[in-house]
Amino acid sequence: MVVIMKPKTKEEDIETVISYIRDMGLDVMVNKGVNYTVLGLLGDTSRVDPDTLMLNVHVDRVMRIEEPFKKVSRKFHPENTVIKIGEAEFGKKNTFSVIAGPCSVESDAQVKETAEAVKKSGAKLLRGGAFKPRTSPYSFQGLELRGIEILKAAREETGLPIVTEIMSPYMVEEFERDVDIIQVGARNMQNFDLLKELGKCSKPILLKRGLSSTIEEWLMSAEYILAGGNQNVILCERGIRTFETYTRNTLDLSAIPAVKKLSHLPVIVDPSHSAGMSWMVEPLSMAAMAVGADGLIVEVHNCPEKALCDGAQSLNPKQFEDLMNKLRTMGKNIGINV
Amino acid sequence: MVVIMKPKTKEEDIETVISYIRDMGLDVMVNKGVNYTVLGLLGDTSRVDPDTLMLNVHVDRVMRIEEPFKKVSRKFHPENTVIKIGEAEFGKKNTFSVIAGPCSVESDAQVKETAEAVKKSGAKLLRGGAFKPRTSPYSFQGLELRGIEILKAAREETGLPIVTEIMSPYMVEEFERDVDIIQVGARNMQNFDLLKELGKCSKPILLKRGLSSTIEEWLMSAEYILAGGNQNVILCERGIRTFETYTRNTLDLSAIPAVKKLSHLPVIVDPSHSAGMSWMVEPLSMAAMAVGADGLIVEVHNCPEKALCDGAQSLNPKQFEDLMNKLRTMGKNIGINV
Amino acid sequence: MVVIMKPKTKEEDIETVISYIRDMGLDVMVNKGVNYTVLGLLGDTSRVDPDTLMLNVHVDRVMRIEEPFKKVSRKFHPENTVIKIGEAEFGKKNTFSVIAGPCSVESDAQVKETAEAVKKSGAKLLRGGAFKPRTSPYSFQGLELRGIEILKAAREETGLPIVTEIMSPYMVEEFERDVDIIQVGARNMQNFDLLKELGKCSKPILLKRGLSSTIEEWLMSAEYILAGGNQNVILCERGIRTFETYTRNTLDLSAIPAVKKLSHLPVIVDPSHSAGMSWMVEPLSMAAMAVGADGLIVEVHNCPEKALCDGAQSLNPKQFEDLMNKLRTMGKNIGINV
Amino acid sequence: MVVIMKPKTKEEDIETVISYIRDMGLDVMVNKGVNYTVLGLLGDTSRVDPDTLMLNVHVDRVMRIEEPFKKVSRKFHPENTVIKIGEAEFGKKNTFSVIAGPCSVESDAQVKETAEAVKKSGAKLLRGGAFKPRTSPYSFQGLELRGIEILKAAREETGLPIVTEIMSPYMVEEFERDVDIIQVGARNMQNFDLLKELGKCSKPILLKRGLSSTIEEWLMSAEYILAGGNQNVILCERGIRTFETYTRNTLDLSAIPAVKKLSHLPVIVDPSHSAGMSWMVEPLSMAAMAVGADGLIVEVHNCPEKALCDGAQSLNPKQFEDLMNKLRTMGKNIGINV
Repeated sequence: MVVIMKPKTKEEDIETVISYIRDMGLDVMVNKGVNYTVLGLLGDTSRVDPDTLMLNVHVDRVMRIEEPFKKVSRKFHPENTVIKIGEAEFGKKNTFSVIAGPCSVESDAQVKETAEAVKKSGAKLLRGGAFKPRTSPYSFQGLELRGIEILKAAREETGLPIVTEIMSPYMVEEFERDVDIIQVGARNMQNFDLLKELGKCSKPILLKRGLSSTIEEWLMSAEYILAGGNQNVILCERGIRTFETYTRNTLDLSAIPAVKKLSHLPVIVDPSHSAGMSWMVEPLSMAAMAVGADGLIVEVHNCPEKALCDGAQSLNPKQFEDLMNKLRTMGKNIGINV
Repeated sequence: MVVIMKPKTKEEDIETVISYIRDMGLDVMVNKGVNYTVLGLLGDTSRVDPDTLMLNVHVDRVMRIEEPFKKVSRKFHPENTVIKIGEAEFGKKNTFSVIAGPCSVESDAQVKETAEAVKKSGAKLLRGGAFKPRTSPYSFQGLELRGIEILKAAREETGLPIVTEIMSPYMVEEFERDVDIIQVGARNMQNFDLLKELGKCSKPILLKRGLSSTIEEWLMSAEYILAGGNQNVILCERGIRTFETYTRNTLDLSAIPAVKKLSHLPVIVDPSHSAGMSWMVEPLSMAAMAVGADGLIVEVHNCPEKALCDGAQSLNPKQFEDLMNKLRTMGKNIGINV
Repeated sequence: MVVIMKPKTKEEDIETVISYIRDMGLDVMVNKGVNYTVLGLLGDTSRVDPDTLMLNVHVDRVMRIEEPFKKVSRKFHPENTVIKIGEAEFGKKNTFSVIAGPCSVESDAQVKETAEAVKKSGAKLLRGGAFKPRTSPYSFQGLELRGIEILKAAREETGLPIVTEIMSPYMVEEFERDVDIIQVGARNMQNFDLLKELGKCSKPILLKRGLSSTIEEWLMSAEYILAGGNQNVILCERGIRTFETYTRNTLDLSAIPAVKKLSHLPVIVDPSHSAGMSWMVEPLSMAAMAVGADGLIVEVHNCPEKALCDGAQSLNPKQFEDLMNKLRTMGKNIGINV
Repeated sequence: MVVIMKPKTKEEDIETVISYIRDMGLDVMVNKGVNYTVLGLLGDTSRVDPDTLMLNVHVDRVMRIEEPFKKVSRKFHPENTVIKIGEAEFGKKNTFSVIAGPCSVESDAQVKETAEAVKKSGAKLLRGGAFKPRTSPYSFQGLELRGIEILKAAREETGLPIVTEIMSPYMVEEFERDVDIIQVGARNMQNFDLLKELGKCSKPILLKRGLSSTIEEWLMSAEYILAGGNQNVILCERGIRTFETYTRNTLDLSAIPAVKKLSHLPVIVDPSHSAGMSWMVEPLSMAAMAVGADGLIVEVHNCPEKALCDGAQSLNPKQFEDLMNKLRTMGKNIGINV
């Protein structure tokens, strides 16, 4: 950590800050520049709060040099964390695991048929929303616990482990018992109370990146879960909010190599929510594999009865099968198993 | 609501969509353009989900014309909502109410002294953080329930009602009993489960805008609380996340006239967190009044013992007094009471 | 400047970087932390290019401590630069100067009538677009040189100096001869060749902030003009591009105190283009004065003949008069002359 | 185009707007909703300026349904434009062409050696900056015309066509004569005067996306060039400005399928400038191919003499060779020739 004192700060005021830092058990090196004096903090600075130092009126800026995360950092854990659920192994080298299923759980038939279809095409896990985070209080909020029962039935039938989103700390017990991977949505990425509860949980957590969260904040949210005792976190990039309005969000694929470098945790991509357009799912999925992601979570819709969506915007089972074939073909040559 | 069909969609496929819309009890007007056919939906479209219409493969885009919010809308409630707590009246015409106090509750003495000082200068409510949302699990998370007791003691002594942040639905009962305004922080603006609980609560809610939330999403989060039965929501603009890094966040003062036009709810400004620099608090506070806000929530720090922060970055009591005097002077001429 | 070496860099590789820096005539202090070695550069670092240092594979990051600008910096020029044109004095303490006029120059009558109206209400300069930067090649590109003649005629008649936008280095000679303040639009803020030409020019430059330019980049563009020899630059905040779509751009009023602190140059606000809605011009103008801006540039439209715009979205002369009265009233009490 | 009238607009005021639209030769369909009246404009709306309609005080919003571009649109030109230069064929199906070379032209030896190396590895064109857009007036501005001579000499020697950036309309003649592809940098994407000049030019233009430009604005800038008569534009995605600071910019790979759908023009990716880190060039290049780009423009640095950059952050020739091999391997299986 580096502390930059304001120009023309008096010697004695610099000394006050130096004493304060030394009292925390750190060494300080003083660099006197033409205009600025810069203090280099030597030692374990992870407990130093930059905001507290900023309280001093003579401090101009505090720059962190060490990353603020520890347990998620690859620096202290050079090997990939591999999370094995069913036939999926997230984080295993040269392995690309796909989670697929409907956006919302609507009925037994819908989920069962979709589950069978995606399994046949090579998906390793089934996704489906039971509790839905909706911008409007008047929108359908999901089948809730009944939706979980439907997912369990589909798991029973197909053997696919299930992934679904949690929205409240009240539900942790049920989810821990019934669900195979507990998803935390983008809007709850900094719901710290929920993260603390999930840190005590025995099931893997799928942690989506917040719409306007930096990579560092995302890893810090994972750090909450690991610090609580749960080492199994799968990160998921799902697009960030930018000025561009053509796509619903801007998928930040650079975040994948960044996360792989900074952390040992697996990271997957959601190509459905980021773009918000089904015809973009295929190219973005191919790019996710090429950029080094550990897998995908894809929406696949099955609505044979309703005339309206006979050509649904989320992939239908046929389109998903095509996607899986293309991923397998591309993966083969670059040594990645789908 | 307007539905735009893809170019070259066949007559029969357009008919399918029209039938679907008519089945919801709406009328449809068909506008045939050179390339696009546009369907105008006539009737109460508030229950129509644009995402469901987008499921149809022939639909190009769905454009909402009506705002999605109702209870917070000024259209159906032309008069300002006025929320009276102690001597403050948020939303009352020509009235500007200031909430002030320390960022974190640290000790009885700190809170008591700050409370007395800000009351003397004209603050109408006392703020202070007991539960702190922190990016890092290793940072101090606040004095929690003991912090609330400290705030209550300061209220006892000064008569100032207290404002503090809630982070978990588990705490709603305690907060409803002990706190005068319950604050929802920016990171929890779309914690819908928490919003639903607060909708059943009898105390006013101070709803901060999320770091990357649009004005519409912010009002929809308020709609959750009003839809639950609690009509007393005070909105708070506290800066949005942009590319600019000089200030911590970019205070969006245009949001104030926008909210006043769209909604009947009061809206205040947090000039401390947005900029992250104490010397900007004064000009931003003046601008907040001039742009039409109903008040402020300001950080005032009092730390007589600790050498480090004898010139703290948040305002000290003397600087706060100066600010209040300037606000009163400016307000006088433009007919605003502070 | 601070150079952070990658963890586990060998002694000899650190020495290579140190030698390179010493060869530029700078001193280096070495701070050895637990994981990182940090080099503090002592001396005049303004000529050091961080990107060149980043070319070294062992360098992790380079952090600038000194601001990169010099001639625009208040540090080396503590007094405000005051730019006097006609009756306006941009940058003079407690003075607020308003530029007003139509978006596009359309006809003699339109400009003349608008000029007379805004002069009567207290505007000190007349604005009007002759060369128009348009997103589409098919849109009206302005009356060009004929538009300048119309503005000159209005100046003749009213005595108001004229402000208009330049788009090409080819036009510098004409503008220098005919125009009183040469405006550089947001899209050309980093058109460095144009800035260089304007640096040799004798007329003041109104430099609008780019849609996605940081405050530092904006000041660096002003630095280009000052470095070329032209000391008279007026900065203009006109909104930045963010995710929010309710307003066309997000007016960044925090930039005003930031610029006033960092630089001695005057800074004004454009409340018309930022929001894109005429009813927001008044509150944003009031806020601009309260936050410390040196003035405004406002669109005022006069179209008595055309039925379509009898209630134009840019202010009409009557609305502008009301605005000026409100600014004068508010200014009076806080000691600002309009 | 759809025009939404404000709630409670009187019949006669709606009629004024309808007449105005009919006078432009368009038909109007009137949709009366519960609160809003919506006018559907039928006919060729490409000449209608939404801003002019917004001047009417009773107009609430104008929504464009047709895209504003024509000549760049795939709708009117379904086949890919293929631009052939040397051995590269940008836009040809299943073809991926790579441009490589140093960031700045520094010396004959540097350029010649780099050119030979990248040619050997399979690059089809040589890039190199002669005129450099620099944020600071004090930074090295490039070798300018002498840099172009160096590039020409390298072309002579290797046969590789050359790509370099233009910054001023003054230079169009020289560039048209000497350069094979004329690059327009991100900062000049909306330098409309320069675009107009390039529209009259006989050489292909490489048009980089502006840092905060939407896909639509980018295509509109290409439209300027095509409207001027030059049909050969290669688009280049190079990262957009977002809140994320880990990478210098956020590479928007979703823009590639978007552009391919909207336009017939070829589009390539710059993986060097977007991330700003050499170790990210490889994964981002792989992703660019997988997502459907027509090629890359990559920085390759060759500095055998200078100790500082013996492991430069831009790729060295060996790293570039590895990258090309990986691209060829991956391309083979998915039918793409590199």
